[in-house]
Amino acid sequence: MASLTLDAINTKVLKCEYAVRGEIVTLAQQLQQDLQANPGSHPFDEILYCNIGNPQSLGQQPITFFREVLALCDHPSILARSETEGLFSLNCAFSYETKDEYGPAEFVFESIGWSTSFSSCIDAIKRAQQILDQIPGKATGAYSHSQGIKGLRDTIAAGIEARDKFPADPNDIFLTDGASPAVHMMMQLLIGSEKDGIMCPIPQYPLYSASIALHGGTLVPYYLDEATGWGLEISELRKQLQAAKSWGINVRALVVINPGNPTGQVLAEGNQREIVDFCKEEGLVLLADEVYQENVYVADKKFHSFKKISRSMGYGEEDISIVSFQSVSKGYHGECGKRGGYMEVTGFRPEIREQIYKVASVNLCSNISGQILASLVMCPPKVGDDSYGSYSAEKDAILSSLARRAKTLEDALNSLEGVKCNKTEGAMYLFPRIHLPQKAIKAAEAAKTAPDAFYCRLLLNATGIVVVPGSGFGQPKLRPYGRLHKIRWEKPTFIKLNLS
Amino acid sequence: MASLTLDAINTKVLKCEYAVRGEIVTLAQQLQQDLQANPGSHPFDEILYCNIGNPQSLGQQPITFFREVLALCDHPSILARSETEGLFSLNCAFSYETKDEYGPAEFVFESIGWSTSFSSCIDAIKRAQQILDQIPGKATGAYSHSQGIKGLRDTIAAGIEARDKFPADPNDIFLTDGASPAVHMMMQLLIGSEKDGIMCPIPQYPLYSASIALHGGTLVPYYLDEATGWGLEISELRKQLQAAKSWGINVRALVVINPGNPTGQVLAEGNQREIVDFCKEEGLVLLADEVYQENVYVADKKFHSFKKISRSMGYGEEDISIVSFQSVSKGYHGECGKRGGYMEVTGFRPEIREQIYKVASVNLCSNISGQILASLVMCPPKVGDDSYGSYSAEKDAILSSLARRAKTLEDALNSLEGVKCNKTEGAMYLFPRIHLPQKAIKAAEAAKTAPDAFYCRLLLNATGIVVVPGSGFGQPKLRPYGRLHKIRWEKPTFIKLNLS
Repeated sequence: MASLTLDAINTKVLKCEYAVRGEIVTLAQQLQQDLQANPGSHPFDEILYCNIGNPQSLGQQPITFFREVLALCDHPSILARSETEGLFSLNCAFSYETKDEYGPAEFVFESIGWSTSFSSCIDAIKRAQQILDQIPGKATGAYSHSQGIKGLRDTIAAGIEARDKFPADPNDIFLTDGASPAVHMMMQLLIGSEKDGIMCPIPQYPLYSASIALHGGTLVPYYLDEATGWGLEISELRKQLQAAKSWGINVRALVVINPGNPTGQVLAEGNQREIVDFCKEEGLVLLADEVYQENVYVADKKFHSFKKISRSMGYGEEDISIVSFQSVSKGYHGECGKRGGYMEVTGFRPEIREQIYKVASVNLCSNISGQILASLVMCPPKVGDDSYGSYSAEKDAILSSLARRAKTLEDALNSLEGVKCNKTEGAMYLFPRIHLPQKAIKAAEAAKTAPDAFYCRLLLNATGIVVVPGSGFGQPKLRPYGRLHKIRWEKPTFIKLNLS
Repeated sequence: MASLTLDAINTKVLKCEYAVRGEIVTLAQQLQQDLQANPGSHPFDEILYCNIGNPQSLGQQPITFFREVLALCDHPSILARSETEGLFSLNCAFSYETKDEYGPAEFVFESIGWSTSFSSCIDAIKRAQQILDQIPGKATGAYSHSQGIKGLRDTIAAGIEARDKFPADPNDIFLTDGASPAVHMMMQLLIGSEKDGIMCPIPQYPLYSASIALHGGTLVPYYLDEATGWGLEISELRKQLQAAKSWGINVRALVVINPGNPTGQVLAEGNQREIVDFCKEEGLVLLADEVYQENVYVADKKFHSFKKISRSMGYGEEDISIVSFQSVSKGYHGECGKRGGYMEVTGFRPEIREQIYKVASVNLCSNISGQILASLVMCPPKVGDDSYGSYSAEKDAILSSLARRAKTLEDALNSLEGVKCNKTEGAMYLFPRIHLPQKAIKAAEAAKTAPDAFYCRLLLNATGIVVVPGSGFGQPKLRPYGRLHKIRWEKPTFIKLNLS
């Protein structure tokens, strides 16, 4: 047998856990292979992956304009051909039909689908030409600047300015293959040893616990309050920060996920101001996961970037360090497979910026299609553009369908015995609390598994629906400063469901 | 001023160096901005980036068939349109013209360019349809399996089998955003502390030193012998391994770059067998950087994968652990910006494979366009396919142009006083030795810079040509087990030039 054994490899890798792709997903993949080999071998015909926000895997169609531009940039030699104009500009009408059909189980939501019998408008050709002009030598197959193509960063900065009404600098943008590598880069920078702590919400998106574990740091938890709709209390932040300090931990940064994942809350503006002041006073880097900025479903809440909030409070680069993460995988576009995203890095000393640049440069650059898509997402068609009509209809249909499904699913869950689910204000998930009977908990103990994982496995085996046990998000309790693999499960059970 | 200071960040980040994107490149970017703002402000009109293999940035055109398939997969709704067939299958002839024009300096090579007045053939449409059928739900915008889309891994495994005439398993393939993230994943797995050593050739591609530094391990150097055309001696491997052990270092793996970067040698089959036996005997993981497998320019050498060599010696999974890295960025295609690649992982225990899978899953998946391109590169059009003619003509033109340029550049360098350059058998670079006069070395000392970096800066300021100082590759001497930032420069100077 090959010589490498578990005791020889990096213990930090061993300690890392990543629930959204964990054992339930592995089981689901096995069942899927079963179904292909032996149709009818399970009480369901297909696996429904609700473990992660992956809308296009469940039938959501891409935004036509975005894909037209990408296709033209991939194969620019067709730009000059007469057929192309016919193909990409037939007319400016469009047709689509949405379907919101619900499957047999209350949890099952078929995704939106439409038949685009043709594409949008000639401005896709114009935009592709503009983008190619921004790329040195029009070379979409070349490595770019380590931060991404300058012209695309200009576009993104303009998009941020339009969103926030405060200046944005293209030199602050680092384009990345989705938000995950950006988070890893910051963790790599901030964590030198287990004495370095990163404050994270609990429940959290397990990318954070996984990344902190891989880099050997300490996750300093702060608990969101289920009773107040997953509220974020500054007193809780202070308490946990003090506790961490008393353990000798140097807390470097605070992660805030807004809109929340997996909890779906949208922070109120006043709350965001308090968080900014807390980071400023305590000298913490504010790591703002803002990938769900387009996904707000309630009329009384609105997304505000933390940079906008801090600038509106009169704070500049010298007052607070903020990193805003954005991704093309979420929003209404849901382009997960394209791996595009960026981080906007403000308020760091030049010598630290140099180090961030160095870490970015070791992977050379992010993929150019993802870079182009990030620029499109931050600067989509505007009123008056040829394709604005089709673009905004597609966008509105997806967002209103997501909002409808959030409400329907929340109501369905709350109508079930023993299930309680907070209101979903944003993002793409529901995080219901499920009271399991003592008998189920005992059965789980007998099977040497956490009750929530036990429940998720039963649900999968019975329905083909893949959800993630709440313990994977650190819910309900995390032992102080242990890593997530150390969590002890306590009643009640939480699971995460997604909307797409 | 923002509070985060250098002494608070990860010291491993501070220690990491990455010469191919280092200070010379930063200077080049400044000069480029100068030229844009003030044309004529320097004795050259453009910057020629020879620091890294990035062929399309220097005008090499992408392979038409590959880009057609990518465009169709990006925007599948045009597959059914009649215009598309006209656009993608006008006829099966093709026209292109190559130009190999040399600029004023001996180093300057303008890249190959051609005008494709139309695209290739209808099999691009067929291939796009096949690929879409392999993707669950035809969703090119969805996250895939953490290792990449199964159908594409099947295609890649079939391509490896056709290349090696030994079996390949799609479950051994991990698709990645270029080869760099794959290397980082393996380093993350293998390095737990500075007691873990990775043997690397010197000179080496600085990705390895950078990644080892970022993960806090120890680079154990073995020196390639310039006198024998950058030969790799097993006695040198043994000597360095013993020395490392005597320092208390657990050597985990051996990196071999074949064809070599930056040195361009292609290993002889007998030498590869010795290396396989060395790794087998010493229980080392063989990390085989095989990204230049298509780039061999001499008739008497041929690329053989290390897996093929080990299988031909009768060794199976139980005998040796091999990781083969491949990328879409090199070869004749040079699709650096697409960030596609894979690693083929063989001979690991199942429990280690699980850990590799976990690390892969933390970044969810690599970008789907890159995945598609990796499958195309490993399974291009075959004799008899409609587009085989245009495909192979484009491929041959690029490879023969690279070979021609390698020879021309090598001859030009060797004709210069004080310059000596080994034969380039493969890859994309030349690594000439340059004897600097004492006066230049003193001037460099006065400027507090290494003489090779000093030379590269002068070259850049005088000609706009960006090359990398040899010290960035660890040449000539690395202090035992110090990281690369500790290298001391000694005469002679080496620089790296690329062919594209």
